Amino acid sequence: MKIAGFDIGGANTDLAVVEFDDNGSIINIRTDFSYLPMWNKKDELSQTLLDLLGKDMDEIDAVGISMTAELADSYQSKAEGVLDISARVMETFNIPVAFVGLNGMKDYESVQKNPQELAAANWIATATLAAHMAPDCIFIDTGSTTTDIIPIKNGTECAKGRTDLERLGTGELVYTGTLRTNVATLVDKVPLKDKWLRTASELFAVTADVHLVLGNITLEDYTSETPDGGDISLENSFLRLSRLLCGDMNLLSKDDVEKIAWFIYQKQVAQVAEALKEVSVREHIELVIATGLGMNIIGSEAAKFLGLEIRTMEEILSKEDCVVAPAVGTALLMEKFQKS
Amino acid sequence: MKIAGFDIGGANTDLAVVEFDDNGSIINIRTDFSYLPMWNKKDELSQTLLDLLGKDMDEIDAVGISMTAELADSYQSKAEGVLDISARVMETFNIPVAFVGLNGMKDYESVQKNPQELAAANWIATATLAAHMAPDCIFIDTGSTTTDIIPIKNGTECAKGRTDLERLGTGELVYTGTLRTNVATLVDKVPLKDKWLRTASELFAVTADVHLVLGNITLEDYTSETPDGGDISLENSFLRLSRLLCGDMNLLSKDDVEKIAWFIYQKQVAQVAEALKEVSVREHIELVIATGLGMNIIGSEAAKFLGLEIRTMEEILSKEDCVVAPAVGTALLMEKFQKS
Repeated sequence: MKIAGFDIGGANTDLAVVEFDDNGSIINIRTDFSYLPMWNKKDELSQTLLDLLGKDMDEIDAVGISMTAELADSYQSKAEGVLDISARVMETFNIPVAFVGLNGMKDYESVQKNPQELAAANWIATATLAAHMAPDCIFIDTGSTTTDIIPIKNGTECAKGRTDLERLGTGELVYTGTLRTNVATLVDKVPLKDKWLRTASELFAVTADVHLVLGNITLEDYTSETPDGGDISLENSFLRLSRLLCGDMNLLSKDDVEKIAWFIYQKQVAQVAEALKEVSVREHIELVIATGLGMNIIGSEAAKFLGLEIRTMEEILSKEDCVVAPAVGTALLMEKFQKS
Repeated sequence: MKIAGFDIGGANTDLAVVEFDDNGSIINIRTDFSYLPMWNKKDELSQTLLDLLGKDMDEIDAVGISMTAELADSYQSKAEGVLDISARVMETFNIPVAFVGLNGMKDYESVQKNPQELAAANWIATATLAAHMAPDCIFIDTGSTTTDIIPIKNGTECAKGRTDLERLGTGELVYTGTLRTNVATLVDKVPLKDKWLRTASELFAVTADVHLVLGNITLEDYTSETPDGGDISLENSFLRLSRLLCGDMNLLSKDDVEKIAWFIYQKQVAQVAEALKEVSVREHIELVIATGLGMNIIGSEAAKFLGLEIRTMEEILSKEDCVVAPAVGTALLMEKFQKS
């Protein structure tokens, strides 16, 4: 059996095509993703799904869908977003389709009755993968935009919050990521030589610039749009970061900017560690399993900062597949749903 | 004599046409402004200047220019920005033109030799107005995007920082304003009922939404673009603010959002008060003169918070003219320069 799992986010749509043998064991995984800003290009969703599938379109038996794109500010409410996205998906495929909900897989009829059930449920899919690695752990998935921190006990997720709104209050969702986060939301002041400087509150630079300058990511990892529309290059990342201080690369040195980038990185790790600590102390779990693009930097560093045991999903997936872990988990959930 | 003063900012271009009698006293002031985002529409600058002038074009004797738009991220450096903007201005007019620099008015020839001198110097123009009201004071100009906090002694500005970069370190520039500031840069957590919730780091809502919901500004004052491209309405401001918590107006009540808006407002006042205190304590000045769109809210509240004496430029200008105080000051400086 061959199953496609899609994770439709606000900025990226991720795909995992997973092939299973008759016993349900995984034979092969192919992953891919496409930058699709749902706040202004939702009309291209259907074509993007087909483009990502390519020739696999003729070979897959079913499609599983998880989503977070209903949060995009082109929608008046989450319910409106879920209904629009699920309708676009249903128009695209004429094979079985089901959706990841907060309480398991749902068919389209259930979705129409209770769209809220699907809102921002993609972490449920990732939990399946983490539970497969360790029955008691906290998984931390640091993507381009957000970080999920989900406790798992006895092989089952036991998150205290269900919706994004609730999870922002329980430490289980931190709205900070490896690429798209506006650095002005991370720091009010930064050190420059012997002084503290206030920062500009514009969208001048993002965490992708920070992590590129620090060598935490490669040019190929920088898959989001640049805030100034400029090219993706090390030089431009330095320039964008200098603007955070109303500076430019005549006024600041590369060394100045590297130190500022390092400071912002530490603030981001501390922000994630604070939430991770909240979950770890509350649930009495000290093993952390990291995934996502930021797993070896933000996720692992936050766990180390707290002295917690740390493993990554690279034990069971390739690095590329870890970046789209929710899509892989969605395919696994869909396979079980098809057989049930 | 009739003089036009322009203040060319990153987001707004402001005009004051000031008519003087033979003794140099002000007979009449007309002000106007236009939303012109210089990061993507700088080619429209010349036409915008002419449109704002209208029929006054045939009557004015000279033009004074101050600017902050060179900071826009369409420019690689401030020098490049100043040279581009000043060249566009010179092409527009065939009457005398001069520019507000950090050390007085400069003709075009001087600008080309030393463009850095002009960068973000518009507060020099506002200082002229404040010194006219009180020889020893701190003026605080809270515009759409930023807040200048400038000490004046014996009728002369004595700011410790000159460039924006320096002023972000001396408390003399706080990059927070009445309309355009991303609220995610102001708060990491907000209170909701009996809980603290983390916030989404997107550009979901701006301070214009906060101040509209609180009745601090009117619909007419909301002259900046909305972050989601939606209409300017009270209802949409509530919706945008609810997204800060990954919520919507089904999940949150108006009362919830009003309390969150009030909390953000207090954080913004505290941020400005911290910088105002730094300047006030350092310079031993306890009289504050507020101007700009936020003068009666952010500026005055910050001064009250510190127990400082507070006056506003409404004593000498209409409320509308206060919003473009740097343009009025620029016209006054140009009149003196013409006569010298």
